[in-house]
Amino acid sequence: MDLYGSHINRLIEELQGLPGIGSKTAQRLAFHIVNMPKERVQSLADSMTEAREHVNYCRECCTLTDGELCPICRSEKRNHRQIMVVENPRDLAAYERTGRYEGVYHVLHGAISPMLGIGPNDIKLRELMQRLQGSDGEKNCDEVIIATNASVEGETTAMYILKLIRTLGLDIKVTRIASGVPVGGDIENTDEVTLERALLGRTEM
Amino acid sequence: MDLYGSHINRLIEELQGLPGIGSKTAQRLAFHIVNMPKERVQSLADSMTEAREHVNYCRECCTLTDGELCPICRSEKRNHRQIMVVENPRDLAAYERTGRYEGVYHVLHGAISPMLGIGPNDIKLRELMQRLQGSDGEKNCDEVIIATNASVEGETTAMYILKLIRTLGLDIKVTRIASGVPVGGDIENTDEVTLERALLGRTEM
Repeated sequence: MDLYGSHINRLIEELQGLPGIGSKTAQRLAFHIVNMPKERVQSLADSMTEAREHVNYCRECCTLTDGELCPICRSEKRNHRQIMVVENPRDLAAYERTGRYEGVYHVLHGAISPMLGIGPNDIKLRELMQRLQGSDGEKNCDEVIIATNASVEGETTAMYILKLIRTLGLDIKVTRIASGVPVGGDIENTDEVTLERALLGRTEM
Repeated sequence: MDLYGSHINRLIEELQGLPGIGSKTAQRLAFHIVNMPKERVQSLADSMTEAREHVNYCRECCTLTDGELCPICRSEKRNHRQIMVVENPRDLAAYERTGRYEGVYHVLHGAISPMLGIGPNDIKLRELMQRLQGSDGEKNCDEVIIATNASVEGETTAMYILKLIRTLGLDIKVTRIASGVPVGGDIENTDEVTLERALLGRTEM
């Protein structure tokens, strides 16, 4: 039996279309929304359509932003010759929270995944290559730090980017962020692959 | 530094106002929304404002519904002289999924909780009492099944409802759903209070 009527049902269905929202969460959210003051619901709905309307990719690093250039690409305090390549804007935000990185970013919006049918042309790789080479054919950057995830997709993407940069024939340093036991993690509960990586990546004390 | 610009920030803030949505989930949802096709975002936003606009309490049982009466209260197949009292529409939905209940419901929209400052007047108790008594002063119902949660608030509310119904002076049967070891649960991992309840509520085989 249809318990709630068409409007609530439609809202529940729409909410279930969002990532990580199952049928129970969608139900809980829907009931919360229909119990909210009307102006709060309007404000929530407007924030969605407005964000979608005004947000686009930064012309330089492809992250999501309001204007032509994102605040990081606009900043004169950042080192624009050091580019960290990340899979998505959330990874960028995570590195910004450390407060320890002074270069700029390049957001791929995904990683190469044959399993999911995501190829090199489906992520912002062409934009990265264009960015590395100036109009005069000279290199536009000194170091590319590849900070894709330590997953199969992330590693595949990292190797692919390295190969692409090498074919440019420019003397650009390409580095990969370290992989190892997380801070606060214990050896006993760390998986074998991570332990092996930690060993291979050991540094002198 | 402001990483995303005002529109995305506002969307993240709005989403964080929803129950069970923390800052990371809000970020993930916001990025998903700004990457959705425009018409899908519009549809999601509309479903919210429209549901809020059209939904109201059922005149009879106080559940959330589109029209004057909810589908259950409108149905002639249900036993309208057996009323199950639940805390919220999600509990109603849970009992409807069993497919084994043929009476109608009464939705309180909360439970009495001195801790949270929720008193008897803040939930739909007056509506329940009006419903039990016909305009001729005769009883309108044969049984009230109290299905509030097995929590302190739920038990308090159950006792309060029992007392209220007794003061009506009508011969209405009041029952409480059973409390005990859940199906599939094992004795070893069940807490003492539940075990005691299960013992007190034992039935002959």
